[in-house]
This record gives sequence, structure tokens and C-alpha cells, in this order.
Amino acid sequence: MKIALIIENSQAAKNAIVHDALTAVAEPLGHQVHNYGMYTPEDSASLTYVMNGLLAGILLNSKAADFVVTGCGTGMGSMLACNSMPGVFCGLVIDPTDAFLFSQINDGNAMSMPYAKGFGWAAELNLQDCYRKIFENEGGAGYPKERAHFMAANRSILKDMKAASCNDMLTVLKSVDQDLLKAAIAGEKFAELFYPNCQDQAIADYLRAL
Amino acid sequence: MKIALIIENSQAAKNAIVHDALTAVAEPLGHQVHNYGMYTPEDSASLTYVMNGLLAGILLNSKAADFVVTGCGTGMGSMLACNSMPGVFCGLVIDPTDAFLFSQINDGNAMSMPYAKGFGWAAELNLQDCYRKIFENEGGAGYPKERAHFMAANRSILKDMKAASCNDMLTVLKSVDQDLLKAAIAGEKFAELFYPNCQDQAIADYLRAL
Amino acid sequence: MKIALIIENSQAAKNAIVHDALTAVAEPLGHQVHNYGMYTPEDSASLTYVMNGLLAGILLNSKAADFVVTGCGTGMGSMLACNSMPGVFCGLVIDPTDAFLFSQINDGNAMSMPYAKGFGWAAELNLQDCYRKIFENEGGAGYPKERAHFMAANRSILKDMKAASCNDMLTVLKSVDQDLLKAAIAGEKFAELFYPNCQDQAIADYLRAL
Amino acid sequence: MKIALIIENSQAAKNAIVHDALTAVAEPLGHQVHNYGMYTPEDSASLTYVMNGLLAGILLNSKAADFVVTGCGTGMGSMLACNSMPGVFCGLVIDPTDAFLFSQINDGNAMSMPYAKGFGWAAELNLQDCYRKIFENEGGAGYPKERAHFMAANRSILKDMKAASCNDMLTVLKSVDQDLLKAAIAGEKFAELFYPNCQDQAIADYLRAL
Repeated sequence: MKIALIIENSQAAKNAIVHDALTAVAEPLGHQVHNYGMYTPEDSASLTYVMNGLLAGILLNSKAADFVVTGCGTGMGSMLACNSMPGVFCGLVIDPTDAFLFSQINDGNAMSMPYAKGFGWAAELNLQDCYRKIFENEGGAGYPKERAHFMAANRSILKDMKAASCNDMLTVLKSVDQDLLKAAIAGEKFAELFYPNCQDQAIADYLRAL
Repeated sequence: MKIALIIENSQAAKNAIVHDALTAVAEPLGHQVHNYGMYTPEDSASLTYVMNGLLAGILLNSKAADFVVTGCGTGMGSMLACNSMPGVFCGLVIDPTDAFLFSQINDGNAMSMPYAKGFGWAAELNLQDCYRKIFENEGGAGYPKERAHFMAANRSILKDMKAASCNDMLTVLKSVDQDLLKAAIAGEKFAELFYPNCQDQAIADYLRAL
Repeated sequence: MKIALIIENSQAAKNAIVHDALTAVAEPLGHQVHNYGMYTPEDSASLTYVMNGLLAGILLNSKAADFVVTGCGTGMGSMLACNSMPGVFCGLVIDPTDAFLFSQINDGNAMSMPYAKGFGWAAELNLQDCYRKIFENEGGAGYPKERAHFMAANRSILKDMKAASCNDMLTVLKSVDQDLLKAAIAGEKFAELFYPNCQDQAIADYLRAL
Repeated sequence: MKIALIIENSQAAKNAIVHDALTAVAEPLGHQVHNYGMYTPEDSASLTYVMNGLLAGILLNSKAADFVVTGCGTGMGSMLACNSMPGVFCGLVIDPTDAFLFSQINDGNAMSMPYAKGFGWAAELNLQDCYRKIFENEGGAGYPKERAHFMAANRSILKDMKAASCNDMLTVLKSVDQDLLKAAIAGEKFAELFYPNCQDQAIADYLRAL
């Protein structure tokens, strides 16, 4: 999988901690990690948690990423912003059991974690344990497994319901505040990471034209 | 506030525990609790977590409720379903600090909790503590308070972004699977609780006509 | 290692869940699990959490076990009882990071967990994750590792302080209420598990003579 | 109650945060807080978690304090050290429900908390919630209350068992490493806080003579 890491301004100083924990787990499992920043609190391109959500929507709907790892101080704002986007199903993960059950039952394509609340000494251990639960197994296998079929059915209904509720991503891109959108893709490595991986020409074209 | 309680089928047997904890906290604070069920696992109207979300969307967008308390086994499915609806900002709350920060920073209008995962003996204590953190204070006051203005600004931007992403609720009602919609409002007390409190005539009319 | 599992009366019905989780993790790692009960709430020999502690003291001081896994409703009572015994250093473990840090920093010989509080659906996942953190690594390696020497020094000072504070185990056995002691070793498999593994003749002789 | 706060060297920088949270809760409830330090990482008198335990033993056995609030990075070391002392029953408290149940069921006289692990942004909120659960109610009232008698009986048996296991405090003071003991009472406010409140002449005399 292509895993995109997105960090907002309040926790930008922790990019390295989060990125290290994520790559330590995900790369040996054969996944790639694309670090979309913020990289430091001093980055010229500042991302808010709202922009995290918009960026997650762009990456997932264009298939530039298969999964988004994000978060904020409590994880809540980034989760809300991600889930406001079409086709994004973002869990809030606090502990490894949350991560495992989210992966097996909900099989979402994004996770948000708190990088300030509860994030004390040795927090990198919990990060790694949570990421491992997400990335070491195939998602959606069900827990318990004998209820997998039922869980898959609910996911499918949720997906349809969300599709009925949301506009498609290109429409969203055209409808949102264009300054917000420009800021969401202003990260210094956005172009380098996004365009070669984007699989939706219309989204790529729209963003390039901004 | 009018607080709507919505429980899906897998945790229906816990309606009384959750309802007792919620009313014990909310009513002395001057709030009303509307128990939309499920009431028991044997209810003729069965709600899935997806329907929880659709029902939450109906209640909040029509102003029949000011706040929705919901959940499922892990809280994740209900949270995802709620957040797929226009105008719904649903936190996933595990502990009292989550509840407080969600209320003060994100000021959402719905909360989902796990009623199976981590829900062991004495779990009613944590329920009460979490509800209290949500309902005893005015939401959105900021934490720390000196950053309230900044937090309010982000909430406003998120609200606008979600408005650009989602259809309005009446359109959603017309677009979703109509059997799903009928099932979501089939609870035995739905009519009694909803129609007298609904403040959106078009939504009420559409639902009555189903 | 020889790992002894001890469960008190309030959680006796969970013996199978706990034992299954423990053996699933510990046996593939080359450890043996000795299940000292209680096995069911109907066992003729009823253990309180206080007896859990006394039994843990017997097993560890006689080297019949290298590590004790115990617990009670909250884990607190069993932990207090274990730690009242000479030579027993019992952690209270809630999540995998607790387990790992307890193992690497404190390197105790017993752990207590809550088997009612917070013990909901899928709790067996957390049990396994916690046990794995304890049993997959050598204890006392330090976290971070570069502070291992300092951590070992503190453990050694604690051990000496506790030795100054407590009587030796044989004296404790003679001093405690003898009915309590008889009850603590009344489990139906105690003799079968204990005497062949006990490495302290004086303790074995004293207990046999009761 | 007289509540003694004791912090070891690794978390000394957090004395003010912990002390503020504790006094904010305890003083309005009519309790006194005695801050035994460490006050800053630069204090000339350095306390390890082992010394925390020895100091807690002195304060509680001499009735200079009615309750000890302590902790360390994970809370585990301080808890182990406290529980190695006669007459000290120290809980490890992570969340408010732990605090409440420890108070109501185990009614101990000391609590240890993690001040590094899990101690992130807004951790002062959880501190306050935990302290409130301990100090706002009379301990030992039972949860559920109808089982209070049974819980009190077990506490009494545990107390007797620990009395059989441990030496009395004066003997402990004479038996432990005397340099460790001197270091444990070397805090700059020890004499000022301890001697006026100590209710055991023999302990006071022994310590003065060091």
C-alpha cells in the first residue's frame, strides 16, 4: 500500500517521531510511506486539521494513496475533517485494540491519532503497536471472523449511504474555498509525491490549474 | 438541550444502562433525553450503526435534537455513519478527557462511544463521567481558553468545507436507499418523539410521506 | 519460564478466557503455564484476592513458578496482596505499553490485570498483547536501553529495601492466619502443580504439614 | 486529611503541574497538601522512586500524612516501592474510574500515577479528575455499596496478612541502608513538614538522630 502521512501545524514538531514509528512498522511489511508534512513547525506551508481532511480526500479519491495516517492534538479534528470528505472512512485510534478492530470490522482508509493528548514518554511504542495492527493484516477480515460477511454488508451500505450524502471529489474541489484548497496542497513535497501517484486525471488537472 | 439517544442492534441490550447514565447526568443539568431506541434486542425495528448515522442526520438537521448520543460495539461504525451526514460532527469518546476536549475544542453535535469494547464492570461510571464533561459546560469555550478564538475559526472553516462536500439533508433523504431510510425511522417511538420536535417542515413532510 | 496463573473468586468464570490468551502467547515462546485456578465460580476451593497474593508469594519464593499472572476485578486488590509478600514485585498492567515498560524497566515477577473493569468485548486481544510484551523479551533490558544500567541499579536497591522491610517467606507462612494459608493452597491442582516444581524444601515441608 | 505529595527525580520538573492539580482539587474539599518535593530537577536532594516508597512509609506509619500522592515515569516503580513498606497500600491510578474504584473498594492510603507515560497535553485534566475521585468521597464505601461489608472484610484480612509479612516501620528504618534513608529525608522542607505533624515519637527520634 501507499500510505500517506499528514500532520497539521500544532503537532508538526512530531513529524519525525510519527514518521519513524510508521516507517519502522510499514516498510518491512512492504508498504511505502509518503510523508506529506508538515515537517517542522516552521514550514512555510502551514496545514490546519481541516486541510488535513481535504488533503486526505484528494489523496484517497485520486488513489494517490491507499491509506492516510493523520492526527492532531486529540485526533478528533483531523478525524472529523477526513470524514467530511467523500469516500473517506477515518477511524480515531487510541490503542492497539482500537486499531485492530477498526481494521478488521470497519476497514477504513484513514486513521487519526492523538499526538498531544495522552502522548507522553514512550508514546512511540503505542504508535508502532497501533500501526502494526492496521498494516500487518488484510483489512476487513472481520472480528470475530465468522461475522465477516455481516460486517462487510454493513460497510457496503455505509459506503452507499455516504455516496448519496456527498458530492464526488472533483465537485468538492470546485466547491470548497479555493484558498483553503491551495493551502492544503501547498506542502513542499506535494507535487513530487502526488502527481506521479495520482490515478485520476481530472483531479490532477484541476489541482495543477490552481 | 434536547439530547437524542440512539443505540444499534448489537448493543440494544444496554439501552437501559446507557439511558440511565445519560439521564442521571443530563436531566439535573436541565437537558431532556429522547430515547430513540433500540430498546431491547427483540425490538421489531432493528437499527444498524449505518441507520444510527442516518437517524442522527435527520434529528440534527431538522433540529428535532440538539445533540445525539450514540455508539456501537467499538463506537467506530456509528461515528463513521454519523459523520457521513451533512452538518453532523460526531466525536468518538473513550474517556472523560476526550469528552471534555471534544466539547471545548470541536464543539460537535454528536458523540459515539464504545458499548462493548472496553465496556466491562463499572462502565456506567465512565459513561456518566463522559456525559458530564459534555453536558455540564457550554461547548466551544476552548481549551486552553485563550485559544478559543482560533479553535472557533477552524470549526467554522470545517463547517463550510463539509457544507461544500455534502448535499443538504433533504437531498440526502431523497438519494439514500429508501428502504434503509424507512428502517432508520421505524423505531416504535420515532413518530412520538420526532414530529413534535422537528423544526424543518420539508424533512417532516418527506418522512411522513414514506 | 514456569508461569503460574491465579484467579480469584469474583473472576473465576473468566479462567478459560485468561488461560487461553496466556497459553496462546506463552507456550509458543517456550514457556509453561501452570493453571492454579480458580477454574470456575463453583470450585470447592474459593480464592480471594488476598489469597492470590499469599499463593503468589509461595510460588515465587519457592521457585515453583518464575512468574505469576493474576488479577481481580480491577487488578488492584491482587496487586496489593502480591506486593505485600517478600520478594514479589507485581505490576498492574492495563495496556501493552504498561506491560512492556514494566517488563523492561521494573522487571517484576508478577503482573495483575483487571478482568472486570474495562474488560469488555474483544478483551482477549488486549490480554494477548499484554502477555506478549511481558513474555517475548528478556525482562530488565531497560527502556530506553541506554538507561538499563541505571534502571537495574534502582531495582537492586528496591529489592534490598524490600528485603529489609519483609520477613522471609517461611516466617510469613508461620505468621499469617493459618486458615487463610490453608485456603490459599486448597486448590484442587495445587499439590500436583506445586510440589514437583517447588525448589525450597522448608516451604514444601511446612505446607505439607498443614 | 493531610496529603503528602512526593515526586522522584525523573519527573521533578512536573512538581508544579502535579501540585497545582492536587491543590486545586484537595484544598477546596478541606484537605491540606504537604509538598515534600522534589521541587525541581536541580534540587540538591535527589529522590529516586525507591526513596519515594521509603518516605511514604515514614509519613504514613508516623501519621505525619494520612494519604500519599506519588508517582514516577510510569507510576509502577513508585507503586512497588510504596507497597514494599509496612502499612502502605498504594494503588496505581491511570484514569478516574481506577481512582474511584481504588478508593471505594481498596481504600488504600497512597496512590501512584504515571507522570511521563501517557502524560501528554492536557494531562492536568486527568490528574484533577483522578484526585477528585479519591478525595471527594469517604474511602471504603464499597462499589457497589451493597458489597461494602464484603470488601471491608477483605481489606482487613489483607491488612493482617501484610502485618504478618512486614516488620514494623521502626525496625524497617533501622534495617534499611542508612544512606538510602538519609537521602529519602534530605528534602529541603522535610523537617519543616514532617516533625510538627509526626505522631510517632520513636520514628521522629530515630530520624532526628541520623
